[in-house]
Amino acid sequence: MVLGAAEAAVLAFDVGGTDLKAGLVDAEGRVLGMRRVPTPHDAGRPAEAILDRVAELARDLAAEFPQAPAKAAGVIVPGIVDSGAGIGIYSANLGWRDFPFTAEAERRLGLPVAFNHDVRSASAVEHRYGGSREFDDVVVMVVGTGIAAAVFSGGEAVTAGGFAGELGHALVPDPDHPGSTILEAVGSAGAIAKRYTAHSGTPVAGAREVLERARGGEALAARIWADAVDALAFSICQCVSIIGTEAIVIGGGLAEAGEELLAPLRARVDQMLDFHRRPVIIRAQLGQDAGLLGAAMNARALLAPVSGQAPLAAQAPEHAPGPAGATR
Amino acid sequence: MVLGAAEAAVLAFDVGGTDLKAGLVDAEGRVLGMRRVPTPHDAGRPAEAILDRVAELARDLAAEFPQAPAKAAGVIVPGIVDSGAGIGIYSANLGWRDFPFTAEAERRLGLPVAFNHDVRSASAVEHRYGGSREFDDVVVMVVGTGIAAAVFSGGEAVTAGGFAGELGHALVPDPDHPGSTILEAVGSAGAIAKRYTAHSGTPVAGAREVLERARGGEALAARIWADAVDALAFSICQCVSIIGTEAIVIGGGLAEAGEELLAPLRARVDQMLDFHRRPVIIRAQLGQDAGLLGAAMNARALLAPVSGQAPLAAQAPEHAPGPAGATR
Repeated sequence: MVLGAAEAAVLAFDVGGTDLKAGLVDAEGRVLGMRRVPTPHDAGRPAEAILDRVAELARDLAAEFPQAPAKAAGVIVPGIVDSGAGIGIYSANLGWRDFPFTAEAERRLGLPVAFNHDVRSASAVEHRYGGSREFDDVVVMVVGTGIAAAVFSGGEAVTAGGFAGELGHALVPDPDHPGSTILEAVGSAGAIAKRYTAHSGTPVAGAREVLERARGGEALAARIWADAVDALAFSICQCVSIIGTEAIVIGGGLAEAGEELLAPLRARVDQMLDFHRRPVIIRAQLGQDAGLLGAAMNARALLAPVSGQAPLAAQAPEHAPGPAGATR
Repeated sequence: MVLGAAEAAVLAFDVGGTDLKAGLVDAEGRVLGMRRVPTPHDAGRPAEAILDRVAELARDLAAEFPQAPAKAAGVIVPGIVDSGAGIGIYSANLGWRDFPFTAEAERRLGLPVAFNHDVRSASAVEHRYGGSREFDDVVVMVVGTGIAAAVFSGGEAVTAGGFAGELGHALVPDPDHPGSTILEAVGSAGAIAKRYTAHSGTPVAGAREVLERARGGEALAARIWADAVDALAFSICQCVSIIGTEAIVIGGGLAEAGEELLAPLRARVDQMLDFHRRPVIIRAQLGQDAGLLGAAMNARALLAPVSGQAPLAAQAPEHAPGPAGATR
């Protein structure tokens, strides 16, 4: 995948709980030297250790591609992010609180840095170029070990100072006990494996194995899968009721189940909704590099003019430009 | 209550399920000749019958106040409203589907008409002048016989073509059976009375009587009240998780319970939320005329220049202008 052309090359860093991905996106939009290293975990200085590693990667990429000097960098991280203030407010997995990412990254890299949320950035790329691009009211859900989401309303990202899109921690009915639990504890790929093991006593490699067992006719596996679908449908219905969401885009590892996830999800959402408009429920198109591309898109927005934000040219030829594209 | 000055007088009509309120708001912002009549219910031509009555009221007001000729009108209705297209998409209570309100009202009144949703319009007045005006991410919930809501994100109304804010039909845990029901069936004033009667066999006049019985130490009444609080808290938490809502404004009949509603509601929301930011939960200030004022504000937006949308001058002196006000 290539982004369109821009004024100059940018560096892109996608900080995940396990891996840190880095790449240089040149002025023509090609991703050069993409690499993936383990995310440093330093309990005493978690954000500093990550940014030290980011600076090393930046030096490596600069040495490897001297013909494409970067003029800006994009850094995306999980957790609660106030991109306007440049602050990583909180990350449960990585351990920081109120860390000044923009300032510290700019100091280490010597470049203007666009700091943002990983899922919001990846979702912005997905929303701009993927299957939901003709809709204005969209929720992109990334369903993997955990669940994160990005919310778009009237075509704009809803951020609420970094507090929007916490669907993984939204309440859903608890399938095991009376009362509620959180979506992530039932509807994530991680939860599917964990709940199957807890109920059966049999360890499984992941949600994929539970799906295989359900396909093979095993009742418990089918129930665990259906519980996840119910929980995801419940949260989707909340989005529809509260903000009138027109399209739900599902990404992350669980989306690899394709229609085995999406078809029952559409059916449950349809049952749960009343007079509401039914949302389109589709799979994300851009895959696991969407974060890196999102970070690059954020960095390019720091360059002027922002011609790098032009649409992907010949990326998805099956999707002809819609009415918006026709006016370009 | 008076709005600020505008270019000319406007007519305002607030069409409710029971009553139709009408008034003339003169150029100085005074509400003249406010009247309340029963809403016509004509199953065969529900919207037409209402607009016929609106036209009669307009003639009455014009005859009564010849010194203040209206230059525009605002009409607000319940249900699903596409204000951009001027269409009343659906009203369960009043019975229309896809009715062209703007065009039909303009034809009858001979004036430009601003057509919009009742709760969104009342909430826009509440959000602009009430206790939540310093917040950008706000949900205004009107809790009466039913429950309706208006959602603001980043300071802007979230409409989604009229489908946003349907909190009354959002899913909540069912306190009587395993599974889910809708918020309106547990958390509304209507549901509190109805559920109390269903569980006790004792008819009550309304939610107020249930609250009085709870105050008097009756366990069932206290449980029904607590169920309503739980359901409202559950939906508030969904808003916080999905769109990072900072402030919840509660209006409608149930808000008359004041701190007997709000204090337990804040406590339950605090218990239900995880690491999320806690929303401020406050009572609406503007009362039952907010709808009529909202309709007038919509109508004034059709006049140019829109000086009528200036802030209320000496309306709530206990609230000094904040940073935004200081720049005016």
